[in-house]
Amino acid sequence: MITALGGGVGAAKFLEGLSVCISDEQLNVIVNTADDITYCGLRISPDIDTIIYRLSGNIDRKKGWGIEGDSFSCLGALGSLGMETWFNVGDRDFATHLFRTDMRIKGCTASQITSELSARYGVPKNIKVMPMTDTDVETWIVTTEGEMHFQEYLVRRKMSPEVTKVVIRNIEEAEPSPSLLESINESRAVILCPSNPIISIGPILQVRGVKKALVNSNTKIIAISPLIGGVPLKGPADRLMRGVGLEVSSTQVARLYRDFLDIMVIDFHDAHELDEIKALGIDSVALDTLMSDPGKAAELARNLLDLI
Amino acid sequence: MITALGGGVGAAKFLEGLSVCISDEQLNVIVNTADDITYCGLRISPDIDTIIYRLSGNIDRKKGWGIEGDSFSCLGALGSLGMETWFNVGDRDFATHLFRTDMRIKGCTASQITSELSARYGVPKNIKVMPMTDTDVETWIVTTEGEMHFQEYLVRRKMSPEVTKVVIRNIEEAEPSPSLLESINESRAVILCPSNPIISIGPILQVRGVKKALVNSNTKIIAISPLIGGVPLKGPADRLMRGVGLEVSSTQVARLYRDFLDIMVIDFHDAHELDEIKALGIDSVALDTLMSDPGKAAELARNLLDLI
Repeated sequence: MITALGGGVGAAKFLEGLSVCISDEQLNVIVNTADDITYCGLRISPDIDTIIYRLSGNIDRKKGWGIEGDSFSCLGALGSLGMETWFNVGDRDFATHLFRTDMRIKGCTASQITSELSARYGVPKNIKVMPMTDTDVETWIVTTEGEMHFQEYLVRRKMSPEVTKVVIRNIEEAEPSPSLLESINESRAVILCPSNPIISIGPILQVRGVKKALVNSNTKIIAISPLIGGVPLKGPADRLMRGVGLEVSSTQVARLYRDFLDIMVIDFHDAHELDEIKALGIDSVALDTLMSDPGKAAELARNLLDLI
Repeated sequence: MITALGGGVGAAKFLEGLSVCISDEQLNVIVNTADDITYCGLRISPDIDTIIYRLSGNIDRKKGWGIEGDSFSCLGALGSLGMETWFNVGDRDFATHLFRTDMRIKGCTASQITSELSARYGVPKNIKVMPMTDTDVETWIVTTEGEMHFQEYLVRRKMSPEVTKVVIRNIEEAEPSPSLLESINESRAVILCPSNPIISIGPILQVRGVKKALVNSNTKIIAISPLIGGVPLKGPADRLMRGVGLEVSSTQVARLYRDFLDIMVIDFHDAHELDEIKALGIDSVALDTLMSDPGKAAELARNLLDLI
């Protein structure tokens, strides 16, 4: 059994590669839910959905999120009605959010809903996608232009306002989802996917008991830096790290995980950081982490499994 | 100023005809909202939407409801996820329900939402579409196969279970929407559209103060029977009337309105009922009430205006 922690697009790409390599081993994926947002009453879990769509072969590969071949008639009509439409939801994608909202109204937990969606979209049976918590939490970004939901900062404002603080609302109430801690304890390895350390991995580590379980675990814990050549491929990792006063480097990512991390995988473009990371007491390896196609993602996953 | 009371498809057709005849007079349309239903957390007001779509030129004329040219990708995806999809919502139609739900969450009333939707879809400015009440009410049908929401009876079960009772849930709490009673009192005529007397006009008459306002009003009150040749063109008026122990006839419809009705318009196929209706103390006229196209609807409206 392997446990992976991750956020959206980058984690999904890596997990698709990993799924090819471990078709007969149980893989539990603990997914950030702090990106979740409510839109017109519908609860949307972007990271969960991105991972389910990817692992079930439904992902729009070009965009890295959403459903392949989806149409946008509903969103277009919302725009005609004068609604804000910066959150790009396709017609078929809306069905996921309607399904989730319907189950929430019926009293189901995020874990139950994620499990149902995984099965119905066709995620391989050896892979269990789990929300980090069944408690609603939301990432809000404090910027020089005001405080806004993370999705508003990311999608609507295109990461332009200067970040001064990241607040994970309600995270102090967040209990780990059922069997999350057991999964960490019973796995032969825990992989931190190449996800944003502040708003994807960060919230998972703040869920009650998760960091402690990682610190106390005898499991091999390995992380993949989301930075290539010192910058994120996409997304706001650099802006958020800088915004909360951190250096933007894979070494800094390793520092965030130093209490429990065994191996830090960085891109070979950042090989000059290897010694600095080793000086933290963390084994460090440089690999090609650019997952430009599923084959390269699988190759990265295979290399990672070799390290474990 | 004219006030019209009505439900969905039949009322919408008539109102489209009426709108052609009174382009410079204020028309207030008081619409049944007891057909409303919540689907996956979204609040749907079928009668309101049918009337707005029709009066703004967006209606699917072939079906009589929904938006012309709409696609059904979201509903198809919901079906793939194993959800019940008997309530046929198109992708653009979903936008209306998302808009309504979003405004409800923001604390807006049904009146405010209806007013916004009317404006944004482009209902002519001299027509004000009003929900009968801002209170949520719902029609439930008691049948020999159990109690079900009216939409489930109508759409999912295709009116097949035998009706024994009609219950308008929460109707005792329903206050008339703002300016509804004033509209009745200040109009030169009140028209009861050719709508189902049990589940379209019936709930409106049960809203607090509405029947009393009609009884006490000096306004000319005129109704159009929804029956042609003794049966409804479409819909369950006959089954519901029979189910609650009533005779199925335009005379019986007139009896339901006898406390306030001045003129009953029936179809010329039912002219044999004229004397019976007149014996109730209600003036009665037979016209061609089959609105097979907008021209015929306008002709019916013109004839009605002549009677007033």
